[in-house]
Amino acid sequence: MCESNVFLKKGQDEELIMENVAAISPVREGVFLLKGLLGESMEVNAIIEDINLMGHKITLKAL
Amino acid sequence: MCESNVFLKKGQDEELIMENVAAISPVREGVFLLKGLLGESMEVNAIIEDINLMGHKITLKAL
Repeated sequence: MCESNVFLKKGQDEELIMENVAAISPVREGVFLLKGLLGESMEVNAIIEDINLMGHKITLKAL
Repeated sequence: MCESNVFLKKGQDEELIMENVAAISPVREGVFLLKGLLGESMEVNAIIEDINLMGHKITLKAL
C-alpha cells in the first residue's frame, strides 16, 4: 500500500494533517484536495513543498 | 516500494517521462525536479495535475 502521510508546514512548524492519503489534486491555484483511503477528504490552502514517495511523506507549505 | 511513474500532459496527450520516481520537489515556480530510484533526475516545466498514490501515477501538466 502506497498511501502517504501529509504534513502542512507553517513557518518552522510542521503538522501531520492527514494519514493514509490516497490522492492529491489541485482544486484551483493554491488549493489542494486530499483524499484519504477511507473516503475522507480535506481542502488545504497550500503549495507542494516536497513529495517523498519512498518515505511516504508529502509536505505542503501553507499559504 | 512506492515509487511512481510520472506522466507529462500536453494538451490532450500524456507521455510517460520517468519511471520509478522516488521524490519530487519544486525548484522554483513552475519547475519541478524529479528524482529517480537509481539517482537519475530531470527538471520539468510543469504544475501538478494529479497525484494518485494508490495507482503509482503522478500527472504533471506542461507549462
